[in-house]
Amino acid sequence: MQPGQSERTKLKRLDYKASESQDDLYAILDDNFVVHVALVADGQPLVIPMAYGRVGNTLYLHGSTGSRLMRMLATNPAVCISLTELTALKISRSTFNSGMHYRSVVIFGNARIIPDEEKAIALDALSDSLVPGRVAESRPMTKKEVAATIIVAVELDETSVKISTNEVDDPEEDMNLGYWAGIIPLESRFGKPIPADEESAKLPIPESIQRITRRS
Amino acid sequence: MQPGQSERTKLKRLDYKASESQDDLYAILDDNFVVHVALVADGQPLVIPMAYGRVGNTLYLHGSTGSRLMRMLATNPAVCISLTELTALKISRSTFNSGMHYRSVVIFGNARIIPDEEKAIALDALSDSLVPGRVAESRPMTKKEVAATIIVAVELDETSVKISTNEVDDPEEDMNLGYWAGIIPLESRFGKPIPADEESAKLPIPESIQRITRRS
Repeated sequence: MQPGQSERTKLKRLDYKASESQDDLYAILDDNFVVHVALVADGQPLVIPMAYGRVGNTLYLHGSTGSRLMRMLATNPAVCISLTELTALKISRSTFNSGMHYRSVVIFGNARIIPDEEKAIALDALSDSLVPGRVAESRPMTKKEVAATIIVAVELDETSVKISTNEVDDPEEDMNLGYWAGIIPLESRFGKPIPADEESAKLPIPESIQRITRRS
Repeated sequence: MQPGQSERTKLKRLDYKASESQDDLYAILDDNFVVHVALVADGQPLVIPMAYGRVGNTLYLHGSTGSRLMRMLATNPAVCISLTELTALKISRSTFNSGMHYRSVVIFGNARIIPDEEKAIALDALSDSLVPGRVAESRPMTKKEVAATIIVAVELDETSVKISTNEVDDPEEDMNLGYWAGIIPLESRFGKPIPADEESAKLPIPESIQRITRRS
């Protein structure tokens, strides 16, 4: 078994799509913005979308002290976290063989609530992971804001990564019957930044914003 | 309480973002392709991305009879399903007030395994929900393919819908200090369909594929 792998992260099917590369894991996390965090609440499943940042081998999730989810994580730390980036629709000659192409990550772990003394650093790290360089261009966090925030950390130690390649694989017997097959790529990119107000319209677009807009 | 609402779907915070419109729920589901399905497996949370279709007030999920998740749903029918469509990054003057704009759906329900006699109809309905009109242009399903597939249905009876509007709401004291604020819209669209092979390259692009490519 590879590092970062466990019985429950091993792909049971279609394992030709599995990636065991840490670079792939980090790239998928760094290129995206929202994960779906599942936990067990009163014996029932609950899944909530959350913004995140990655710093080294740690995933940070943040929420408000008023957030029900954050309070639940204090007593139910076991989480399963999933991120899926759809890259294309795969249209085969049959609907049976049709599907989707994607890059996806599933993470198993325990959410650890970051203690107060580490919170300000973790918050800035999380913000700079979302929009690199943005912290230095922003109004600094206040103590009150830090106090109003909960950050939880999940180590990236038990993960599963899947990457599809954009190909159609119709069987021989479906060929030359006049059915079309192909890929419809899905393209996601950032549009031009829109200043919020007159003050912002007069200022130059900050470096961090220009960089992230160019990235996509 | 509205129809489709329950104690657990009521938003505890930021409820100005809640939508109680069934049209919004259906539109978000119809415009997207992947949901994250959470269930409790041996007391632990598990969340898996799945393709889906909506037919009326029913969400259909499909998988292989070989799929571990599908087998687990037979004995653990309680699910929580989440879909998040990121529409923009909201860049405030402070990282504290920064965030994301999105449309999201959370669905609570019980997964019901579709019996064999209804499966062929449900499968075609699911396929036509993903790419409207595609079933008529595809090689028909075989009995063997239908047998190899499990479809589960979840009724859209207990749901929560959130829609952000793209605005920045910095407090007065953060204004006129020289910090930029704005919105970075995220645009997702389908690219030009890519035929899979020589046969497909010679055929016209089918209507259903042209339609879905134009839609985005």
